[in-house]
Amino acid sequence: MYTESDIIKALQIHFPEQIGDDAACIPINTAENLIISKDLLVENTHFRLRYHNPETLAHKALHVNLSDLAAMGAMPKFVLLGLSIPPHFKNQLSQFLETFALSCRKASVVLIGGDTTRANQELFISVTVIGTAPTQHTKFRRHAQVGDLLCIAGHIGDAHLGLMALEQDKPALAKYKAAFLTPCALVQAGIWLAKQDDVTSMMDVSDGLLLDIPKLCEASAVGAEVILDSLLENNEFNRACQKLGLDPIESRLAGGEDYSLMCSVKPYAYPSIATAFKRHFNMDLQCIGQFRASQGISFKLNKKPFSINLKPFLHFE
Amino acid sequence: MYTESDIIKALQIHFPEQIGDDAACIPINTAENLIISKDLLVENTHFRLRYHNPETLAHKALHVNLSDLAAMGAMPKFVLLGLSIPPHFKNQLSQFLETFALSCRKASVVLIGGDTTRANQELFISVTVIGTAPTQHTKFRRHAQVGDLLCIAGHIGDAHLGLMALEQDKPALAKYKAAFLTPCALVQAGIWLAKQDDVTSMMDVSDGLLLDIPKLCEASAVGAEVILDSLLENNEFNRACQKLGLDPIESRLAGGEDYSLMCSVKPYAYPSIATAFKRHFNMDLQCIGQFRASQGISFKLNKKPFSINLKPFLHFE
Repeated sequence: MYTESDIIKALQIHFPEQIGDDAACIPINTAENLIISKDLLVENTHFRLRYHNPETLAHKALHVNLSDLAAMGAMPKFVLLGLSIPPHFKNQLSQFLETFALSCRKASVVLIGGDTTRANQELFISVTVIGTAPTQHTKFRRHAQVGDLLCIAGHIGDAHLGLMALEQDKPALAKYKAAFLTPCALVQAGIWLAKQDDVTSMMDVSDGLLLDIPKLCEASAVGAEVILDSLLENNEFNRACQKLGLDPIESRLAGGEDYSLMCSVKPYAYPSIATAFKRHFNMDLQCIGQFRASQGISFKLNKKPFSINLKPFLHFE
Repeated sequence: MYTESDIIKALQIHFPEQIGDDAACIPINTAENLIISKDLLVENTHFRLRYHNPETLAHKALHVNLSDLAAMGAMPKFVLLGLSIPPHFKNQLSQFLETFALSCRKASVVLIGGDTTRANQELFISVTVIGTAPTQHTKFRRHAQVGDLLCIAGHIGDAHLGLMALEQDKPALAKYKAAFLTPCALVQAGIWLAKQDDVTSMMDVSDGLLLDIPKLCEASAVGAEVILDSLLENNEFNRACQKLGLDPIESRLAGGEDYSLMCSVKPYAYPSIATAFKRHFNMDLQCIGQFRASQGISFKLNKKPFSINLKPFLHFE
């Protein structure tokens, strides 16, 4: 089957200017862009109703979309909900709708429309979110420059551990399960980072670093060196990996669904931006590498080249 | 299961102002509204791949959405495509994408994004379209007034005959099959009608008159009297019904998927608007009834009350 990247390329031939960021960007006046994203969640591809209840599912359906806006620095404003409902979801529908509406209100977004239909087999959720971002502070993937630092805000790999814990029916590990079931889009953090001129590009990490770093690099026509050391310093994470029979490096790099933010930052500005970011959001803006002129992604551990031979995690294949 | 109307009502409690037209309306400045719609097409609920090839499907997925914009008087500008692709659609995907892109270009809309995922069972197509309409000439469902004429532009029932011909594997009847497989949204007609001040409300007829007239009436807090005579004057249609074992009145009223336009028109203005409409689009603006103060919908045939005991056609139930 075509990969998503093949499909994007097939469509880019026709619309070369418009496709390639987390969300679409439409200038509405000289000061503001409209930022629009559309993400799908398909039962048994992205979620299973065995461990997603209607509340967590409604929350997640909204936040995976809000995360795309966050990556562009946009303030979310409106949402449209598409639902294709199979018979087995009937009894959970009102709970889903109630939570979706409340999640919208909590995120200050207004539900303005959508569509609902019957499905025969699988629950299908399609959300479109619309926000605005100041033209001056809209961030794209394509402006990372050689020498910029590769930085991450938010968790990396936690959602993957949560998913594996749920798939394996493991007890405890609640923090990781919550990271998978109810990720919170970094909306305010994204808007704040986008306002920093020395943050040159941004995207969200939804498919895992192993897939997402190359996307940012390709859009910016740069390469990157990733320093793995700091990703392995969290003992709680490493112990959880052990419990689940997972490799910590693999889980950090190949697992997806964290909905954290990845950005490129001018090296001279990094210390002050990271300090201010920590003060504002009580969250690290972690530097995990640097963009380089040579194409491709290389990894280092203990100052030595580290060869990665991982397949990115693809949904329930 | 909840009906779509139940779902809309459950969400309207939270967002009473925003939901209820064919498309959502967001003012972007004093002169212009952004008009946004999202429609889903689900395999074996809305279409079967047995008679939809990837080209007709791509065309239809775009046009059912364009029709929602037409109903508000909006000029379509942008589109986002969500696709959830099951293994059995793999070989048809590139043809689908190619036709979708070309259909967008033909309609002067720019594809700005979307999402693609794997599905396990059914092909799922979710399209979001975005257009603009002058504030002064945006049409809604809620402004039909008592005494206004109930008018239709475009076919009524043709798509239903086409669907039945395809389901029954009947030969010929190509015109009706095309009405179902490749409906063309009345984009320019919608924009033109919306510019007429004496057209007071508008919506598209996608679910059939029997479901759609009450929606417009409810939004406008009026009732309607429908005169069936003119709907039965087309001998070709009546003969096609006979071939398919269908009742002409039932097919006209209960069949959906025509993507024609329904509007309310001031009686004094109807003759001149209908004449100008015919001149511009070579299409009738057919008057099929009148809005009344008494709630509910009544029907007349041969000047006598006609009682209707039909179930609207629901997709492949």
